[in-house]
Amino acid sequence: MAGDASARGITPGADTTAGGHMSADEFRRAGHAVVDWIADYWQTLEKHPVRPSDPPGTVARALPVTPPEHGEPFDRILTDLDRVVVGGLTHWQHPGFFGYFPANTSAPSVLGDLVSAGLGVQGMLWATSPACTEVETVMLDWLAQLLELPQRFRSGSTGGGVIQDSASSATLVATLVALHRASGGTWRTAGTAAGYAVYTSTEGHSSIEKAARIAGVGDQGVRLIDVDPVTLAMRPDALRRALDADLAAGRRPAIVVATVGTTSTTAIDPVEEIGAICTEYGVWLHVDAAYAGAAAVCPELRWTHAGLERADSYCFDPHKWLLTGFDCDAFWVADRAELVEALTVMPEYLRNALSDAGAVIDYRDWQVPLGRRFRAVKLWFVLRWYGAQGLQAHIRSAVAHAAWFADQVRADDRFEIVTPGPFSLVCFRLRGQSDEVNSALLAGVNASGSVLLTHTRVAGRFTLRLAVGAPRTERRHVAAAWELIADTATGLLADQQRRDDG
Amino acid sequence: MAGDASARGITPGADTTAGGHMSADEFRRAGHAVVDWIADYWQTLEKHPVRPSDPPGTVARALPVTPPEHGEPFDRILTDLDRVVVGGLTHWQHPGFFGYFPANTSAPSVLGDLVSAGLGVQGMLWATSPACTEVETVMLDWLAQLLELPQRFRSGSTGGGVIQDSASSATLVATLVALHRASGGTWRTAGTAAGYAVYTSTEGHSSIEKAARIAGVGDQGVRLIDVDPVTLAMRPDALRRALDADLAAGRRPAIVVATVGTTSTTAIDPVEEIGAICTEYGVWLHVDAAYAGAAAVCPELRWTHAGLERADSYCFDPHKWLLTGFDCDAFWVADRAELVEALTVMPEYLRNALSDAGAVIDYRDWQVPLGRRFRAVKLWFVLRWYGAQGLQAHIRSAVAHAAWFADQVRADDRFEIVTPGPFSLVCFRLRGQSDEVNSALLAGVNASGSVLLTHTRVAGRFTLRLAVGAPRTERRHVAAAWELIADTATGLLADQQRRDDG
Repeated sequence: MAGDASARGITPGADTTAGGHMSADEFRRAGHAVVDWIADYWQTLEKHPVRPSDPPGTVARALPVTPPEHGEPFDRILTDLDRVVVGGLTHWQHPGFFGYFPANTSAPSVLGDLVSAGLGVQGMLWATSPACTEVETVMLDWLAQLLELPQRFRSGSTGGGVIQDSASSATLVATLVALHRASGGTWRTAGTAAGYAVYTSTEGHSSIEKAARIAGVGDQGVRLIDVDPVTLAMRPDALRRALDADLAAGRRPAIVVATVGTTSTTAIDPVEEIGAICTEYGVWLHVDAAYAGAAAVCPELRWTHAGLERADSYCFDPHKWLLTGFDCDAFWVADRAELVEALTVMPEYLRNALSDAGAVIDYRDWQVPLGRRFRAVKLWFVLRWYGAQGLQAHIRSAVAHAAWFADQVRADDRFEIVTPGPFSLVCFRLRGQSDEVNSALLAGVNASGSVLLTHTRVAGRFTLRLAVGAPRTERRHVAAAWELIADTATGLLADQQRRDDG
Repeated sequence: MAGDASARGITPGADTTAGGHMSADEFRRAGHAVVDWIADYWQTLEKHPVRPSDPPGTVARALPVTPPEHGEPFDRILTDLDRVVVGGLTHWQHPGFFGYFPANTSAPSVLGDLVSAGLGVQGMLWATSPACTEVETVMLDWLAQLLELPQRFRSGSTGGGVIQDSASSATLVATLVALHRASGGTWRTAGTAAGYAVYTSTEGHSSIEKAARIAGVGDQGVRLIDVDPVTLAMRPDALRRALDADLAAGRRPAIVVATVGTTSTTAIDPVEEIGAICTEYGVWLHVDAAYAGAAAVCPELRWTHAGLERADSYCFDPHKWLLTGFDCDAFWVADRAELVEALTVMPEYLRNALSDAGAVIDYRDWQVPLGRRFRAVKLWFVLRWYGAQGLQAHIRSAVAHAAWFADQVRADDRFEIVTPGPFSLVCFRLRGQSDEVNSALLAGVNASGSVLLTHTRVAGRFTLRLAVGAPRTERRHVAAAWELIADTATGLLADQQRRDDG
């Protein structure tokens, strides 16, 4: 267990105000204890299995069925965190976490988030807490510089950035403005009845289909464009054919979502060529770089963003690979006026002189929800604590770990790299073996508890994914993962040999 | 300024790792300093004006135009929080904050949020961190008991609860499932082309119109139903007429959003009668109790939720008036299978045996975004620290403060209560005076810096709103607000008298 609350100065005598507001002194004591609890948790992460093995309902059954009638002392609550929760977690910050994409956080991010929680302000309008809006605008401009994004995405130009909860929401917002544009301004009133179409590759993220569904376009308006069989990148010629077919059928093409770093294999769509087609057809181009965008803080990886000056909107997730805790998706548009026009609804109780005059940014008009918290603080803390060089070092370290791992895979004849990539994901499998054997390899490796890998299918075939990026992952963890994978494969193949012989 | 970082043990010598990952010891030191900073901030809140008076751009100009190349020590970052940010905030936790609705937080909530940030897990699927899902399900069941919500909203029945970021998102999700139902299952594929209609009162929240726009229904499918001129509650007869008119015109009624506690005046729609109509017409009923729902923790205020057993979905915001920091909207549905059916999209890289078997809750299918953080921790901490009785005391205190304030307004012939309400909002104005005079009263009061009130329009007339609920508001703050309002009115009316005489 990560911490022991009773040893941390939270003595029974200090808890006498449970049920009422916590005193400042008590908050200091309890707060220091929680900070120490987190430090202990991080320092002992390796002792936990990466993911739990208990069946569904285990955590729920450890909690009382009814809420307490009377307040309980804080030390009891903190003790239950160890007793009930920790054993039921998949530990995304664990150095052996190689699943999905990373969702890494860092000490400065956690401290920034803590400040934000303590301030408890609402940034729905500039007027409801000006610093909440202005720090966010500046942080998104900082990020745009760190990634060397096109000038028009910056707030000093026609565009600007905003924090969304996730790339899913960024895609949804982009889809909505795109519908507004494609409709010639009638969408706000008429809805999607005219029949629109949304385009992404067969490797595009599921959130694109979900955004189209939410926006009322319907699955029948979603076009999944063929990809190149080797690179798994969208084929521009196939996109053009799909656009032509829709136009011929009377559908209105609204948005193309190109991906830099697909979820399955980190494929990179040819943004430059796709952008030229979007310009030609007058279709909105959104570039989804949810995971891979962070790589652009390194000049040597910025080629992955080629063609971005063609995009109408772009997003990446600092909460995936840039040490900023969830939720923090950074979303930019090239034309903020069009975005606000699409989404604004102004009731009397929110009216104020500066909003009426258009003199300020009201971020509620840049997103689905009305309310918003001060998420820019954590970004500010992260960008300042690490600096550009610290962030580059983080990305380079993960890329190097992944490259080293890929080298081990290549050096072992039993394995093959399925799709090489420049980021920190390695897709591989046992060469010439069935999906069942590869699936058994994944299950066997994960059963160890020391690592977590996930899978995908490439051209229909079961493929293992190892994604590097958890903040505490060092070479020794990647090496141990490889050793485990190789040993598990040896066992599996021997079993199979015995079955074949028998 | 709230804190002085250099006095808190963050010595320059300790900051040598800026740019790299923060050491555990350094995180402990910095974390204790941030906790103390927040305690100081809360203890000195009254010294700050509730909202800043600086012009737009003041905060942005205090920040460097470019991000730092090298990491900076933590003490410098914390110092800048005072130097740059605090003076640019509207302080929602200030005891003189009476604007909008409260967005109150509490020490246990902040500590729970801190734990959640430290754990840094992803709860998109049960499998991606089981405790994240199971604690949330149990907490929503606890809340359902605290509010005595209908049995079918609980996870042991056909329904269940989930945390959304806001009531806006809850309304959007309800609208989407309602469209799925109204379409007979064709909406996922065909979108909203068939032409649907959404109903709320003229006093319904702007997020209802926004949800309809996002969902592709379009503003022309939004029906704002007339309200009773005195209570400002939706008129069931007018709803029925609107439903009939749409059916006659070939539109499909999809959802009625009834409100318990409207944003403008806390009006309460007749949910029982509206629900009977919804049942008759087969239309989804969503009840939006974003602010007022918290009142139902008190048995004596539960009458405001009469008829809720007719609802298909319901939400309220613990982040408004139940001491849980933003974001935390609690959203329930009576039929979780229908919700999941409407929103699920399952790509290969998220597939797992338990999801495939339908054996677990995957909350990604209950919301717009894919990713989600462990927000249930703060709710767990709040419900345990306060207990049912502590939460009731918090609600009763605000209701009593508002009632006391309303009594002062009633006792002063110059004023009138515009709409009486059972919660903690008082709507009032200077009797027989123009909108300009009432607007000047609001501006004069807010210029003091010691309080913040907002406004609305009732039957077209400018009305002041005083909403009680900030966690540190005591009777003396409400009394001071009243004194300030009465004195400001005296000055304004004297000026006017002079102008009339002159």
